[in-house]
Amino acid sequence: MEKGNQIYEGKAKKVYATQDPELLIVSYKDDATAFNGQKRGAIEGKGSINNRLSNALMRYLENNGIPTHFVEELNDRDTLVKRVRIVPLEVVTRNIAAGSFAKNYGIAEGLVFSEPTIEFSYKNDALGDPLLNEYHILALHLASREEIDEIKRLAFRINELLKAFWLTCGVTLVDFKLEFGRLSDGTVILADEISPDTCRLWDSATGKKLDKDRFRWDLGGVEDAYKEIMSRVSQKLEVGR
Amino acid sequence: MEKGNQIYEGKAKKVYATQDPELLIVSYKDDATAFNGQKRGAIEGKGSINNRLSNALMRYLENNGIPTHFVEELNDRDTLVKRVRIVPLEVVTRNIAAGSFAKNYGIAEGLVFSEPTIEFSYKNDALGDPLLNEYHILALHLASREEIDEIKRLAFRINELLKAFWLTCGVTLVDFKLEFGRLSDGTVILADEISPDTCRLWDSATGKKLDKDRFRWDLGGVEDAYKEIMSRVSQKLEVGR
Repeated sequence: MEKGNQIYEGKAKKVYATQDPELLIVSYKDDATAFNGQKRGAIEGKGSINNRLSNALMRYLENNGIPTHFVEELNDRDTLVKRVRIVPLEVVTRNIAAGSFAKNYGIAEGLVFSEPTIEFSYKNDALGDPLLNEYHILALHLASREEIDEIKRLAFRINELLKAFWLTCGVTLVDFKLEFGRLSDGTVILADEISPDTCRLWDSATGKKLDKDRFRWDLGGVEDAYKEIMSRVSQKLEVGR
Repeated sequence: MEKGNQIYEGKAKKVYATQDPELLIVSYKDDATAFNGQKRGAIEGKGSINNRLSNALMRYLENNGIPTHFVEELNDRDTLVKRVRIVPLEVVTRNIAAGSFAKNYGIAEGLVFSEPTIEFSYKNDALGDPLLNEYHILALHLASREEIDEIKRLAFRINELLKAFWLTCGVTLVDFKLEFGRLSDGTVILADEISPDTCRLWDSATGKKLDKDRFRWDLGGVEDAYKEIMSRVSQKLEVGR
């Protein structure tokens, strides 16, 4: 399968058409942005790590009953995926207070919730990806009632699966962002990526941040954190070379 | 019943203790603020209008099965109410897009929703009353699952009752903010006020704004709008002199 026309370029990925209208090629970049694009930079080797890592995690989820867009890893940066119409929602599941949650609600980072929380943001850069609730999603016709319920069911189940997996790597899953898409028959599946760009991952023993917060907050050792995560995952799951 | 110690002063009301620990006196001020206190001013006669108007609407709701904090109107600015522990949530019900909803989600003011929406904000001036969802409310221990369900049930029912009432006044209820409180036995009841400070009210024929948006956006005729609303309500409900 070869790259056709580039049909989209996002902050961290490019997307290409293929000969098959139902399939796309995603190509991971080293570019990094934060704070809705206000901070820009690059993390050397990130594209390759995120591609291989996300694919390994998608395969793990597929093996545990989660439908995903993953089809085949083509090389260290490029992956063949199912074409979807993206549901314009960023779906954030949180186990521990951090980031915007801690800031917005005046809570110390590190508070462990008794139950995980889910929140939706309207995926719209011009509006700054504003938080919204399920009534808003329906009023804005962004997803149907049935789609919201299915997305929540999948996100909670993915949280359980990922939390358990990361624990075996000595990593605490603090929170993470998912995106979902619709296949041509309307089925909702997991799309986008799962990586240190989209998850907060803390070393379970030391609490050290092993994710994009190192880039956001200029904590240093950004590349090393991504490599550390890759190294730990590759001891547990099959990861592309 | 006489005013004891002042126990609270908000943006538009003062609250006094009484000899009865289960009762308080609310005293309405003419002060007006907007944008989380960044804009300040006064609307002459507002305190008296909001007091009498809110009481008339609370009596209307009580007669239709909604439990409220209203006990007795003492004079044109002061009202005896049941003491509650306020649930720290601002509960906004919307029938038509306007205000922060239109701005945050890039929607033209005036879009009529097929179903009303409800949203919660964390009542916290220092944090700017941030929007939150039901999972956040539970994680922050602001209300229980049962309280959230009861608040939503009451808010939707109040919306039906108020929409129907305002229609008889030639007024379209666009959106409104409610606050709820807990009695000492835990029962959740409607508290705070219902007035042009807390509702968006548009003339049904002309669309003219008859609420605090005239103050927020310097549209002129602020006092006249409050008087117009008072006049229309007093033709339908018994209103204190």
